Amino acid sequence: MEQKIPMQQSKVVQTRLVLPPDTNHMGSIFGGKVLAYIDEVAAISAMKHCRSIVVTASIDSVNFLSPVTVGDVLISEAFVTSTGRTSMEVYVRVKRESWKNGEQTLTTTSFLTMVAVDDQGYPIQVPTVYPETNEEKQLYQSAMERRQKRRT
Amino acid sequence: MEQKIPMQQSKVVQTRLVLPPDTNHMGSIFGGKVLAYIDEVAAISAMKHCRSIVVTASIDSVNFLSPVTVGDVLISEAFVTSTGRTSMEVYVRVKRESWKNGEQTLTTTSFLTMVAVDDQGYPIQVPTVYPETNEEKQLYQSAMERRQKRRT
Amino acid sequence: MEQKIPMQQSKVVQTRLVLPPDTNHMGSIFGGKVLAYIDEVAAISAMKHCRSIVVTASIDSVNFLSPVTVGDVLISEAFVTSTGRTSMEVYVRVKRESWKNGEQTLTTTSFLTMVAVDDQGYPIQVPTVYPETNEEKQLYQSAMERRQKRRT
Amino acid sequence: MEQKIPMQQSKVVQTRLVLPPDTNHMGSIFGGKVLAYIDEVAAISAMKHCRSIVVTASIDSVNFLSPVTVGDVLISEAFVTSTGRTSMEVYVRVKRESWKNGEQTLTTTSFLTMVAVDDQGYPIQVPTVYPETNEEKQLYQSAMERRQKRRT
Amino acid sequence: MEQKIPMQQSKVVQTRLVLPPDTNHMGSIFGGKVLAYIDEVAAISAMKHCRSIVVTASIDSVNFLSPVTVGDVLISEAFVTSTGRTSMEVYVRVKRESWKNGEQTLTTTSFLTMVAVDDQGYPIQVPTVYPETNEEKQLYQSAMERRQKRRT
Amino acid sequence: MEQKIPMQQSKVVQTRLVLPPDTNHMGSIFGGKVLAYIDEVAAISAMKHCRSIVVTASIDSVNFLSPVTVGDVLISEAFVTSTGRTSMEVYVRVKRESWKNGEQTLTTTSFLTMVAVDDQGYPIQVPTVYPETNEEKQLYQSAMERRQKRRT
Ligand SMILES: CC(C)(COP(=O)(O)OP(=O)(O)OC[C@H]1O[C@@H](n2cnc3c(N)ncnc32)[C@H](O)[C@@H]1OP(=O)(O)O)[C@@H](O)C(=O)NCCC(=O)NCCS
Ligand SMILES: CC(C)(COP(=O)(O)OP(=O)(O)OC[C@H]1O[C@@H](n2cnc3c(N)ncnc32)[C@H](O)[C@@H]1OP(=O)(O)O)[C@@H](O)C(=O)NCCC(=O)NCCS
Ligand SMILES: CC(C)(COP(=O)(O)OP(=O)(O)OC[C@H]1O[C@@H](n2cnc3c(N)ncnc32)[C@H](O)[C@@H]1OP(=O)(O)O)[C@@H](O)C(=O)NCCC(=O)NCCS
Ligand SMILES: CC(C)(COP(=O)(O)OP(=O)(O)OC[C@H]1O[C@@H](n2cnc3c(N)ncnc32)[C@H](O)[C@@H]1OP(=O)(O)O)[C@@H](O)C(=O)NCCC(=O)NCCS
Repeated sequence: MEQKIPMQQSKVVQTRLVLPPDTNHMGSIFGGKVLAYIDEVAAISAMKHCRSIVVTASIDSVNFLSPVTVGDVLISEAFVTSTGRTSMEVYVRVKRESWKNGEQTLTTTSFLTMVAVDDQGYPIQVPTVYPETNEEKQLYQSAMERRQKRRT
Repeated sequence: MEQKIPMQQSKVVQTRLVLPPDTNHMGSIFGGKVLAYIDEVAAISAMKHCRSIVVTASIDSVNFLSPVTVGDVLISEAFVTSTGRTSMEVYVRVKRESWKNGEQTLTTTSFLTMVAVDDQGYPIQVPTVYPETNEEKQLYQSAMERRQKRRT
Repeated sequence: MEQKIPMQQSKVVQTRLVLPPDTNHMGSIFGGKVLAYIDEVAAISAMKHCRSIVVTASIDSVNFLSPVTVGDVLISEAFVTSTGRTSMEVYVRVKRESWKNGEQTLTTTSFLTMVAVDDQGYPIQVPTVYPETNEEKQLYQSAMERRQKRRT
Repeated sequence: MEQKIPMQQSKVVQTRLVLPPDTNHMGSIFGGKVLAYIDEVAAISAMKHCRSIVVTASIDSVNFLSPVTVGDVLISEAFVTSTGRTSMEVYVRVKRESWKNGEQTLTTTSFLTMVAVDDQGYPIQVPTVYPETNEEKQLYQSAMERRQKRRT
Repeated sequence: MEQKIPMQQSKVVQTRLVLPPDTNHMGSIFGGKVLAYIDEVAAISAMKHCRSIVVTASIDSVNFLSPVTVGDVLISEAFVTSTGRTSMEVYVRVKRESWKNGEQTLTTTSFLTMVAVDDQGYPIQVPTVYPETNEEKQLYQSAMERRQKRRT
Repeated sequence: MEQKIPMQQSKVVQTRLVLPPDTNHMGSIFGGKVLAYIDEVAAISAMKHCRSIVVTASIDSVNFLSPVTVGDVLISEAFVTSTGRTSMEVYVRVKRESWKNGEQTLTTTSFLTMVAVDDQGYPIQVPTVYPETNEEKQLYQSAMERRQKRRT
């Protein structure tokens, strides 16, 4: 019998302070740092879903909508939006909160494909995910389309 | 007129993966790493409350209740539980989640005192916090006692 | 009179050793680390082209084609393949070389859009790039198509 | 026959430069960094005493008495002040020295409890420590009191 | 039959951006950072030549000819210039490129001796290197002299 | 009237734990890490002598006499052994202590030349150093010879 797991279980929040080593000499964060944070929360989210080690198979295109500067707070949220046999699609949303006025701006969103692997790095089966809220259902239903787009 | 802010506003969650650089050569996390994570979420929480730069004035004693190993997920939660004129008491709770079975264990809890400062490092006034839920009220009411204990 | 710069000038090579902090507890590199390296060489390449500070506007989708493990050598190459008014498209290719047998495997390729900015983060004009070799010409000619795809 | 070891043997000094990554965007050190340094010297000190791996069981409350800024020199000193069956109390004193005038200020002092463990993380017995100088004797004699306070 | 490998095969280029954590609070790079980069490219170069793990046996004296500041691009190049039975001499040249005007300055050059070792750290035999270009031949011929100087 | 400062004042001790990020995938420390630690203690020592910012002008050749592995304790000691007009010679000695048996081995010794600089990086005058103990006197007297050797 197949195991089914709600999206809720893989929800991950990571709040971080943007520190000098994350930024260039103008105090502006590197895109690569944000990408590394995105990958980290996506990996944790996928691990929470499948309870095994995961590797990143791909990341969809990422647009950086607004700058983030040293001292800002960066909030990354992730959850599994769809599952294949061994792969999971993870949605990540990154917001930036100004420490001065609490204003939140959307920094970027992204979809990653994580694959569950065993100790030798071979893909292993993952449980099926199911959506509950409206936002979850929407992301779940559009997953097939994103999957097809990735293949072309 | 004094500004009043609900505890809810300073809630911060930080989920991280425990990586090789966080651990000793036996794969067990350093207490100092956990302390650094505790201080980071406490600082973010205090900044979200007072919207200024903060410094750590003190951290109450910390007991490490159970080991954390490489590959585990560490979840730190923080919020402001009480305010003085320029200082804020922040409560931090750290849980560890096994990536293998999703089992959660309490790693530690701690109270820190953060002080809002201006550009020169001089203490400045902070808004007053107020509790809403039962857990919040309990922590709010016991704050005075902890404050007195700290002074002796 | 407009300044024209050959692709050759923005060529950047970065060879690195994959170290324990780059990898999970199974010794396999994090996708996020590779993304951070990709962004770093793309930024250097764009800076070499335009001689100003740059920010990452976007990164196209990235597929991780083969695993990279601790001890491997990672070779990232980047150059500017096309220019707009203030933006530059940068192509990055990452190869992995086994330290044991010297075998090279393609890890991933990616296109990033970097934007030249002034001290305040406002976009500024960049010189025009032109291709010389066949590979350069191919990438130059296909750039318009990629640009359009990005917009939809 | 029980092994007895003088406090002197576990004395550890660690002098470090406060660097940009240790500080916030105002150039002021994070409390969490100091806590991580305290834990590191305490661990080395305990290892020098018991010649096994150690883990941090607890840290007593820490007060940060004065700010430390980028470019300052931080001097941490630690030694074992008391021993139980498997645990060691370690005293740590952190001074800050201004690189401009050599002025030294006390940053903080702290007591940590470190436990000796075997490869599996199980507590193992430690040698008994004994004091020689007056300062050592004072810290040795007050250890029992601190131990009782920790338990309430 | 002895294996012979051209110098060309061990050529390594590493281009990096000088970031805030590499520099002091005046934005000037630490000599120690440059030395760490030199050692990293020398190790990669030696590994490319001998296809085994290597350790650094020695580094000849290093003169830092001109300062490098945050935001600069650092280009390190290395290749094996001579081989003994188990040791390899590696030549490293570090240039700094200003991101503002593309001007290149020589930062330093250095010779390191790397030794090929097995899993237990015991020296193992390496293939013989041979030079092809004029610069390579010059460095190859002067190697013996440097080797003798090192011994006194 | 010229200021004279005893060698004693610039004595610096830095004890560190060798952690996984310092080592290759065989758990053996990188030479570059040791060089970075040597440069850090030398810089602190020179700053304690001259009370200004310093840059590394050169490091004499360094021989790594014995391997250092993860979990070991590394003890670096430095002091100023001679002064010119704007430069200081600093002697650094690095010992490794096994955490298992407390055995100490000499890892390496080195001499660095540090130059005191102002905010713009221009060399400025330093106080004169004088030796007190026998070891100090020996190092002081041999400094001239080393200085001449460096120039050839
Ligand atoms: C924290 C600090 C700003 C307080 O300065 P001060 O001159 O004592 O200022 P004040 O007496 O006005 O105290 C300011 C507030 O801090 C509180 N405070 C000061 N020391 C404290 C301590 N050790 N524990 C808890 N609260 C403390 C005071 O009670 C006061 O709170 P209130 O305004 O809510 O009543 C100062 O000690 C400092 O800069 N310390 C270093 C902070 C730091 O940089 N930490 C990182 C590691 S060093
Ligand atoms: C990139 C950025 C400067 C663009 O600002 P903007 O107000 O959209 O500016 P413009 O509309 O003038 O666009 C500037 C150029 O960027 C390009 N651009 C903007 N967004 C883009 C995207 N998502 N993908 C590709 N190109 C993009 C535009 O096409 C334009 O190119 P052109 O001048 O060659 O025609 C701005 O979005 C930004 O600061 N983003 C954050 C960048 C950053 O800090 N990244 C690191 C991680 S957050
Ligand atoms: C380098 C090391 C393996 C040499 O071991 P050893 O017992 O001296 O071995 P050998 O006498 O067989 O020498 C091996 C080779 O190293 C060379 N070598 C040894 N010490 C050297 C030095 N200080 N400088 C240059 N070459 C040196 C020898 O000349 C010999 O070269 P060859 O085989 O080409 O003729 C050993 O000293 C060591 O492990 N050092 C620590 C290396 C390290 O971990 N460095 C990182 C920082 S600690
Ligand atoms: C070191 C530096 C300031 C010297 O500048 P300079 O124009 O040669 O200045 P001077 O000729 O006045 O020399 C200043 C002192 O440095 C000494 N010096 C210069 N180069 C040296 C070298 N390679 N080795 C040893 N000493 C050296 C001089 O002998 C002189 O000493 P003195 O005043 O005690 O007699 C300059 O070369 C520099 O900035 N180098 C980069 C330093 C740096 O940033 N290092 C980190 C990594 S790049």
